[in-house]
Amino acid sequence: MKTSLDCIPCILRQTLDVARLVSKDPAVHENILRDVLGWAGEMELNQSPPAMAQRIYRRLREITGVDDPYRETKDRQNFMAMEIIPALRSEIESASNPLLMAVRLAIAGNIIDVGANGNLTETDMRQAVNQALTEPFFGEQDSFRQEIAKAKSVLYLADNAGEIAFDRLLIEKLSPELVTLVVRGAPVINDATLADAQAVGLDKIVEVIDNGSDAPGTILSDCSQEFQHRYTDADLIIAKGQGNFETLNNEPGNLFFLFKVKCPLVADLVKQPIGTQMLVKPRSGKNELANK
Amino acid sequence: MKTSLDCIPCILRQTLDVARLVSKDPAVHENILRDVLGWAGEMELNQSPPAMAQRIYRRLREITGVDDPYRETKDRQNFMAMEIIPALRSEIESASNPLLMAVRLAIAGNIIDVGANGNLTETDMRQAVNQALTEPFFGEQDSFRQEIAKAKSVLYLADNAGEIAFDRLLIEKLSPELVTLVVRGAPVINDATLADAQAVGLDKIVEVIDNGSDAPGTILSDCSQEFQHRYTDADLIIAKGQGNFETLNNEPGNLFFLFKVKCPLVADLVKQPIGTQMLVKPRSGKNELANK
Repeated sequence: MKTSLDCIPCILRQTLDVARLVSKDPAVHENILRDVLGWAGEMELNQSPPAMAQRIYRRLREITGVDDPYRETKDRQNFMAMEIIPALRSEIESASNPLLMAVRLAIAGNIIDVGANGNLTETDMRQAVNQALTEPFFGEQDSFRQEIAKAKSVLYLADNAGEIAFDRLLIEKLSPELVTLVVRGAPVINDATLADAQAVGLDKIVEVIDNGSDAPGTILSDCSQEFQHRYTDADLIIAKGQGNFETLNNEPGNLFFLFKVKCPLVADLVKQPIGTQMLVKPRSGKNELANK
Repeated sequence: MKTSLDCIPCILRQTLDVARLVSKDPAVHENILRDVLGWAGEMELNQSPPAMAQRIYRRLREITGVDDPYRETKDRQNFMAMEIIPALRSEIESASNPLLMAVRLAIAGNIIDVGANGNLTETDMRQAVNQALTEPFFGEQDSFRQEIAKAKSVLYLADNAGEIAFDRLLIEKLSPELVTLVVRGAPVINDATLADAQAVGLDKIVEVIDNGSDAPGTILSDCSQEFQHRYTDADLIIAKGQGNFETLNNEPGNLFFLFKVKCPLVADLVKQPIGTQMLVKPRSGKNELANK
């Protein structure tokens, strides 16, 4: 998915959010915004929004010298999510369709995204979980069930901190011994890295690797050779979040995307309203996700 | 009111809206956005948002060669508003407080603002009118009533096309012979110019002048000498819309602002929620509008 002109005002808003997070000095906020404005005026739009975000966050790190501005936020998100996980696990076990319930809760966890919503509270998180059971769901569950039944190896591409605790619930319903969890290779926004997989104990139940990249998505050419091999070899790839959807939708692989539609452009592309929980395969080349 | 860093993403979104209005060519949209991005990276923030918008719209006119991209939109807005005016006039006459009703409807008309909302429909307009009677209202009506009773000359600064038909209803409740209506000196966004005053017949009941400026607000130093004299001499100035509030809040004059709070920054400044109908005097220098 290419960056749209409409992404630019949104990217600038996010820039301002993160500038305010890394510094209390309005002069620093202004410098950062001006820097990104100057750069945005020259940029190549033939890339995905996560590729844009990757460049901006690299520049933010350069300007501020802060490597991981969301570290505290991520710790808090993991902690908040872990608090409600035991109750959710019981809910999955008592559901009439436990796998579907785990899928919906994993997607619900995708609300924990400071890129799209910088001020998530525990109340928002609990609301998202409650809504998860009533929200519109657009999914290919039968096909998903078949694929996980026959896959001998599953690559699970995580998205954000906090959300990764919800992923754990779904991974527990798969066969953990077949699953490799993939986190980002370096901090970017609140995306999950190795520290977050450890914070929710996923390193105890599955193999965890990183993809070698600092993009808030999965740009294959930017990932490590090791990850690329694992990607090619996997029977099934489960990709969480809009960032992974935006970067992998036109890539090869036996992919399932699990995400919540968060912006008007993605809503337009998948032909589902904002807020919809998606469990879908890519549509090769044409992006005609909903034309089925 | 100075431009905030938060205004910049919003200004860029508006730039994109107007670029799409003046051209169907995505390459033109991209050129315009890049141009404004480059310029925004260098700009002086020590000005009001309407001063920023003025510069952007001048640049848009230069790039596209289109002087008045919203002319058709404005004609449609005037027409839509004039359709419902007779019914609203009856409503004012039968109200228990006709002046307050006219004030509230004039503020309701302030929803017709393509800067803040590019896709207003007739349904939106009717909804705004219906809401006008139930929306939160923060006003100094007693003081307003006293001022209009004693003023020998009233300068009424119009805001947008369409909205100007609603202004007519309020002007009819004042003493039209004492009122001079002021429109913008040149087209900018959908702000009212002489053609719009004529379209709603205001030129038949009051004197109409223009302020000599193409800013979507009233930047006194940018207005004609004639307007500046009229401004200084007026017993009472009624200024419609956020743009006039943003540019005149710290200026001298016996001012009343009538507007609907439309953006988070103004909401923060006036300490009232978005959507509130405001009928307020400025607070000298301190912007402590709501501390009373």
